[in-house]
Amino acid sequence: MKALVYAGGTKKAFEEHANPEIQSPTDAIVRVTKTTICGTDLHILKGDLPSCKPGRILGHEGTGVVEKAGPGVAAFKPGDRVLISCISACGTCMYCRRLMYSHCTTGGWILGNTIDGTQAEFVRIPHADMSLYAIPAGVEEDAMVMLSDILPTGFECGVLNGRVAPGSTVAIVGAGPIGLAALLTAQFYSPAALIMVDLDANRLEVSKRFGATAVVSNADGKAADAVMRLTDNRGVDTAIEAVGTPATFELCQQLIAPGGTIANIGVHGTKVTLHLEQLWDRNITITTRLVDAASTPMLLNTLKSHKIDPRLLITHRFKMDKILDAYETFAHADKTKALKVLIEA
Amino acid sequence: MKALVYAGGTKKAFEEHANPEIQSPTDAIVRVTKTTICGTDLHILKGDLPSCKPGRILGHEGTGVVEKAGPGVAAFKPGDRVLISCISACGTCMYCRRLMYSHCTTGGWILGNTIDGTQAEFVRIPHADMSLYAIPAGVEEDAMVMLSDILPTGFECGVLNGRVAPGSTVAIVGAGPIGLAALLTAQFYSPAALIMVDLDANRLEVSKRFGATAVVSNADGKAADAVMRLTDNRGVDTAIEAVGTPATFELCQQLIAPGGTIANIGVHGTKVTLHLEQLWDRNITITTRLVDAASTPMLLNTLKSHKIDPRLLITHRFKMDKILDAYETFAHADKTKALKVLIEA
Amino acid sequence: MKALVYAGGTKKAFEEHANPEIQSPTDAIVRVTKTTICGTDLHILKGDLPSCKPGRILGHEGTGVVEKAGPGVAAFKPGDRVLISCISACGTCMYCRRLMYSHCTTGGWILGNTIDGTQAEFVRIPHADMSLYAIPAGVEEDAMVMLSDILPTGFECGVLNGRVAPGSTVAIVGAGPIGLAALLTAQFYSPAALIMVDLDANRLEVSKRFGATAVVSNADGKAADAVMRLTDNRGVDTAIEAVGTPATFELCQQLIAPGGTIANIGVHGTKVTLHLEQLWDRNITITTRLVDAASTPMLLNTLKSHKIDPRLLITHRFKMDKILDAYETFAHADKTKALKVLIEA
Amino acid sequence: MKALVYAGGTKKAFEEHANPEIQSPTDAIVRVTKTTICGTDLHILKGDLPSCKPGRILGHEGTGVVEKAGPGVAAFKPGDRVLISCISACGTCMYCRRLMYSHCTTGGWILGNTIDGTQAEFVRIPHADMSLYAIPAGVEEDAMVMLSDILPTGFECGVLNGRVAPGSTVAIVGAGPIGLAALLTAQFYSPAALIMVDLDANRLEVSKRFGATAVVSNADGKAADAVMRLTDNRGVDTAIEAVGTPATFELCQQLIAPGGTIANIGVHGTKVTLHLEQLWDRNITITTRLVDAASTPMLLNTLKSHKIDPRLLITHRFKMDKILDAYETFAHADKTKALKVLIEA
Repeated sequence: MKALVYAGGTKKAFEEHANPEIQSPTDAIVRVTKTTICGTDLHILKGDLPSCKPGRILGHEGTGVVEKAGPGVAAFKPGDRVLISCISACGTCMYCRRLMYSHCTTGGWILGNTIDGTQAEFVRIPHADMSLYAIPAGVEEDAMVMLSDILPTGFECGVLNGRVAPGSTVAIVGAGPIGLAALLTAQFYSPAALIMVDLDANRLEVSKRFGATAVVSNADGKAADAVMRLTDNRGVDTAIEAVGTPATFELCQQLIAPGGTIANIGVHGTKVTLHLEQLWDRNITITTRLVDAASTPMLLNTLKSHKIDPRLLITHRFKMDKILDAYETFAHADKTKALKVLIEA
Repeated sequence: MKALVYAGGTKKAFEEHANPEIQSPTDAIVRVTKTTICGTDLHILKGDLPSCKPGRILGHEGTGVVEKAGPGVAAFKPGDRVLISCISACGTCMYCRRLMYSHCTTGGWILGNTIDGTQAEFVRIPHADMSLYAIPAGVEEDAMVMLSDILPTGFECGVLNGRVAPGSTVAIVGAGPIGLAALLTAQFYSPAALIMVDLDANRLEVSKRFGATAVVSNADGKAADAVMRLTDNRGVDTAIEAVGTPATFELCQQLIAPGGTIANIGVHGTKVTLHLEQLWDRNITITTRLVDAASTPMLLNTLKSHKIDPRLLITHRFKMDKILDAYETFAHADKTKALKVLIEA
Repeated sequence: MKALVYAGGTKKAFEEHANPEIQSPTDAIVRVTKTTICGTDLHILKGDLPSCKPGRILGHEGTGVVEKAGPGVAAFKPGDRVLISCISACGTCMYCRRLMYSHCTTGGWILGNTIDGTQAEFVRIPHADMSLYAIPAGVEEDAMVMLSDILPTGFECGVLNGRVAPGSTVAIVGAGPIGLAALLTAQFYSPAALIMVDLDANRLEVSKRFGATAVVSNADGKAADAVMRLTDNRGVDTAIEAVGTPATFELCQQLIAPGGTIANIGVHGTKVTLHLEQLWDRNITITTRLVDAASTPMLLNTLKSHKIDPRLLITHRFKMDKILDAYETFAHADKTKALKVLIEA
Repeated sequence: MKALVYAGGTKKAFEEHANPEIQSPTDAIVRVTKTTICGTDLHILKGDLPSCKPGRILGHEGTGVVEKAGPGVAAFKPGDRVLISCISACGTCMYCRRLMYSHCTTGGWILGNTIDGTQAEFVRIPHADMSLYAIPAGVEEDAMVMLSDILPTGFECGVLNGRVAPGSTVAIVGAGPIGLAALLTAQFYSPAALIMVDLDANRLEVSKRFGATAVVSNADGKAADAVMRLTDNRGVDTAIEAVGTPATFELCQQLIAPGGTIANIGVHGTKVTLHLEQLWDRNITITTRLVDAASTPMLLNTLKSHKIDPRLLITHRFKMDKILDAYETFAHADKTKALKVLIEA
């Protein structure tokens, strides 16, 4: 089969690769129908993730059709249309019993990282019963692809951890795909204010269409002042960090109201400064989280009932044999205005 | 009356001072029967708290007898024996309605800080209905003094924020009075492990008597390794920071298990480093809090029912006219082995 | 002044009454600008509430202008436009500290019950700081009247207690004003299904306009079957009882899914049957609650940010001197299709 | 092998039975080393549980050694010493993902009910990875047997659902084995009052030894009055129903304070009366639950750390070939004072 393979360093190749096989009774082989590219894939291609070795097929998002199911797979059979979760989980280890699937002792985020991923014709899914979801009748497959990673990530790491609540005030720092996923899912809880902060004028425009009640450019470095003005100088109840840099984490500390929560989604490559000399007595909570995808069944319900339309996030479409073009488009989002690029078999 | 007055810089005096008067209908004047000294008082005497101006009577802990009650005080009358909370709260502002009494817009920690405090013969207590508590029959007044600040601080900022739970593992970094208060109140929740970390051998000995399941000296800088060994290399579910330095906050980050909570109690004077490059994907929660004393009624219940004996914390006793000696003893705890020093009228 | 007075038995009169006076330092006198009639007022007029004695001015909802404020009132002064909460609360008693304002030892629901109410030119409001709310600029006073009782009741007793959540399924039994208030506020949490059950075809029609995802008539006594069909035979996660009869409480027990919550809002005059022989092993929660109005600040935020429009509930308007006509209209809602009738000074 | 078999009606037999075999890849066969008898077994032997058919081996508690493990069992291998949970759970179905293992679509309470149980030489355990637990070094096997059912049941259905908290007041109605298990595990949370109510003087005596702060005999039908006296006429914050009759559920309604929780553990055979005409406005919560055994890992931690000694519950010991004597002893607990009877291979 053809697959997008990490070639080490900053290199990748779309090349011939052996088909995956069942390795464990609980594995399933899925024929991929749709996939997409994640910011994390770009991180790998910068050489930032030593866990991902050369020769690895990338990709941890997608939908497909079950091709084979191991004898220990109870919930799925060949021919079933499925969503592939970015998180594989055994369901029985100490972490899985606490619903911390991201820390599953034999799973977690392994797809397209420590085992071959979804940017290929076929993919092997371990712990299939816990890691695949049936696609409900009447739900568009395009929308489902957004449930592999980006929607649960924005929702769990940003909205749930950030305790977004009716009538509360929320700032999301970073209006990229993940910040926008937080913006969409934050609206499940009807906050009074949903303020998006970014440097990119286009993304702030998109944020308005996606439901932001206000947008703030930090091009002048004065976003904190602007957010204070928008909140009667109280700051926000929830600040969601959706970039992953010391500067944006610092901004969140400036924005947060007493009693508030800073929910980190960003992937951080370096340490940051925490101003405990200012925050020690302000009753603040700071959270970090790798998506557990524990909310996937609930997100499926919101999708079926039309409470959210994640297709808004899809800006470009490619056939699988043009996946290198898809990478180009996604990697230059500043020019192409790409959010999520859909790649179809 | 005689009072312990902050004289600016690093100076204090035990001197004559005018008696306090009712200033608002909800004020009460309390004749102080017992008081004590807090680590924060020492901070003031290092010149660290600009909010506390020269001429201020120090002290925010104590018990006493109501001398006068303003016309708006409903719950207390002259002659009532009372506990004085370190936190004054109106009960009606936006923060008080969220039980964040520490952020009361006309209260919070003001006693011995922005208004005169309890290290005197008399003290004016604003918002008396919310800021005083009747001393129940059968409860020792000595024990009550520990409920002014140290017990609710250890419990709310450390134990509650740290989500200590039956069967969980807890490390408390810092075995001073506040760390020991956390140690005592953590036992309300029956954790499986309660590991105390400190540099001082005496305090670690005391910790054992107070219920620690293990003690770890960080004299060799290897406390993190020792805690890992004690927890099957998982780390602890709760790490309570009870010192207030970058190094001890760093240690908490090394100790914490995936899914765990770092609950900060320490008063920090400088910024700290947060290792988001290691913690962003470990589902960690970090909390800060100034004590709200919202748990005082509950702590009174545990005291009445003998679930805790906070008199364990009292190591020395002085008469009020020897308060300067009490300060000496408390300031040199490394030599005197002082925890809390009780000062009696 | 003129006031609507309960005359004992099933009688009422709109008659001359002495103006209220400040009785306690924390009282305020409010000139009523708008008020309304509650189902509970009709209960009183059936002789159902012995706590309400003849001679009592009825009414516990409304807006107005502060006329006088006692010396202990800190937050309001004459001339302030205010919302009157149906719940009076001291803010400092054992129950108020738990945010159970409904059980305030010197407050709770007393207006138009054990003290004179709002269906008059003036009303005395005890504990004014906790029991009045400033009307924010830009919010319509008509909408505010719905925040006195009906919106916090539907929200706290039905939605919050019922743990309505994104993607969950909800049935509300009873589409009267209180059930509709639950319907409106349930949407703060984006449930997947919001099924309204009633006997009245008009109210079911109204429910559709208010956001119900399905409506079920129980005219044939087969509502339980219909709800089961709508939920893949699972039942609902939340069943809100908004009528107050044994039959409707029974229906909720038939509708509820394993793990679900039955949240009672209805005022019950007789005991009911609880089928523990069927429910003991189904992990069910049942809640009761008298509104605490603890959510009023949050509801004000949702109103200011246009997340809800409670004016939808207002079907009729009357001048105060036509209040007897308003009672006629409201008492015959089956014919008049009245939901809430607004009475203006 | 020999096994205790339900013979229909009120009959049982200790007789030869075919050994169990692996039926599914995730099954394990366990050689039973210790088991016990549950009140539910007596219910079956009264003909009360139609789900349990004649020919069924009874028993859902015990410890043992893994004899065989199916190819889909990852966590256990032959020779492992294990605790058998009374709840079998797949870990992946809709209910298991919510930690409602009792409602697992292919598990739940099936052992000794719809499949053969543990009162035999060998037992087949479905979903072995989720339904067995390794016995930690240093923990007595006798104590472990109490973790199969009685401890998690008392803890989850009574203590957790009842929201027992430090400083709170608790009444447990019923001092049989399950009520005593609630009494033991309630102490994890340091309530201020733990009042046991029963008719049997011996069980009340036992309760005192197990940590009750007060005991109340309801022999005179006046337990409610006595509990009110013990709680300053407030009632209790938590009432745990551990009998399963209309009268004891009624008593719980009389005991409960405003804002309190009635947590039902009792197995009810008939409907009960709920006094909503008294409770509708008292902010009460009522919960039901079939044990999920989701707390088993946590209970293991408390056992390992000696926070609880469940061997206190064991009053009698029998060899397996005397199991009919064990049944006699357990069935006549009023005379034999039996709590739990341990049956050893």
